[in-house]
Amino acid sequence: MKKFEREKHVYSSPDFEEIIKDTLRFFNGTPVHSVPVSERFNGTGVYSIYCISKKGIYRDFHKINRTSFDMPIYVGKAVPKGWRQARTANSTIESSFELYNRIKEHGRSISLGKGLELSDFFCRFIILEGKESDLIGTVEAGLIRKYRSIWNTLIDGFGNHDPGKGRYEQAKSDWDVCHPGRLWAEKCQGAHSNKDDLLKKIEEFMTKLRGAHERSNMS
Amino acid sequence: MKKFEREKHVYSSPDFEEIIKDTLRFFNGTPVHSVPVSERFNGTGVYSIYCISKKGIYRDFHKINRTSFDMPIYVGKAVPKGWRQARTANSTIESSFELYNRIKEHGRSISLGKGLELSDFFCRFIILEGKESDLIGTVEAGLIRKYRSIWNTLIDGFGNHDPGKGRYEQAKSDWDVCHPGRLWAEKCQGAHSNKDDLLKKIEEFMTKLRGAHERSNMS
Repeated sequence: MKKFEREKHVYSSPDFEEIIKDTLRFFNGTPVHSVPVSERFNGTGVYSIYCISKKGIYRDFHKINRTSFDMPIYVGKAVPKGWRQARTANSTIESSFELYNRIKEHGRSISLGKGLELSDFFCRFIILEGKESDLIGTVEAGLIRKYRSIWNTLIDGFGNHDPGKGRYEQAKSDWDVCHPGRLWAEKCQGAHSNKDDLLKKIEEFMTKLRGAHERSNMS
Repeated sequence: MKKFEREKHVYSSPDFEEIIKDTLRFFNGTPVHSVPVSERFNGTGVYSIYCISKKGIYRDFHKINRTSFDMPIYVGKAVPKGWRQARTANSTIESSFELYNRIKEHGRSISLGKGLELSDFFCRFIILEGKESDLIGTVEAGLIRKYRSIWNTLIDGFGNHDPGKGRYEQAKSDWDVCHPGRLWAEKCQGAHSNKDDLLKKIEEFMTKLRGAHERSNMS
């Protein structure tokens, strides 16, 4: 066995950064749709959800997003079933409706969540299939890192699923504390975050976001 | 809202395939190390584990891997803590020991698992940090898709963690059925797969692998 030399294991790729930039540019140029998307479509990929609410704790999003849907509230991915296990044949991947279904499910969560109006929410999505489906995780990570979208960072749990029978010992997520309504979330018994603390954190986040947006518009 | 047009959402990148090929080439050129790696190092990335056992159900790996470590038994990733939430500052990412720790943890599982000898196992790993850390999911997916490594595909559960208090209703994983020894896995109460069936599946898998290896050596 050879001596350990860290530098022999470090990979760097100047081209890679360009591809990611190109993917994000493409993403931000895709048409915006309502949630759920009006037409059912097949495919897997990455999506973002935008809020343009005029009132409530997210009201600053109205100004930020009304012209160009600049700042997502959430970024997520829809991967082929059995993706991690590489069990899926490509034909199955291409005929799945993961991306459409995932966005639709988010629509249901928003409808149920207190303080949210489904008509204030819109989405973008990029379909990555075939070889490009390997990019899904990378594009999602790139978007989250770029936007630090509030429901991915500060307020976790929007994308959660019903933990299922025997697992309700866990705590209700921060998202469910702020936007109660999902039945399964109400069953969770663990000690959850304090709602007032979370709302205050959201307020601070939104204030900073508005500040950054105003500064970028002046420059 | 515009009419839905699927093709406006489909991304394709000819350059991307080249980068992935380049990454996999780099990966396969990194030095092989014992499990755990003899020296503690910081970084996140992707790793593969190789078996070169001469006996037992995995004995065919000896012939396949003894010269060049061609066929991993498992591929995994070590992502920065808080990666999904993009909560982590880069400085924290770079000073974490995720990759080293993850491989070490696998070593512990192998030591405990019945029918396995730690000295028969080796690893390769690629450190992906900074912007390249976004490649982690893509490289892992690419390697799993290329090798369809048995502990990622047929026999699931090697990379599992202790589900924790109140969650032992779930079934013991296929890996734990085949290689009993991890204490927490023995606590799992759910109906698990039949061991004889699994061992038969492993045998069939290994026979096919040996066949493919022999054919590739003749050509």
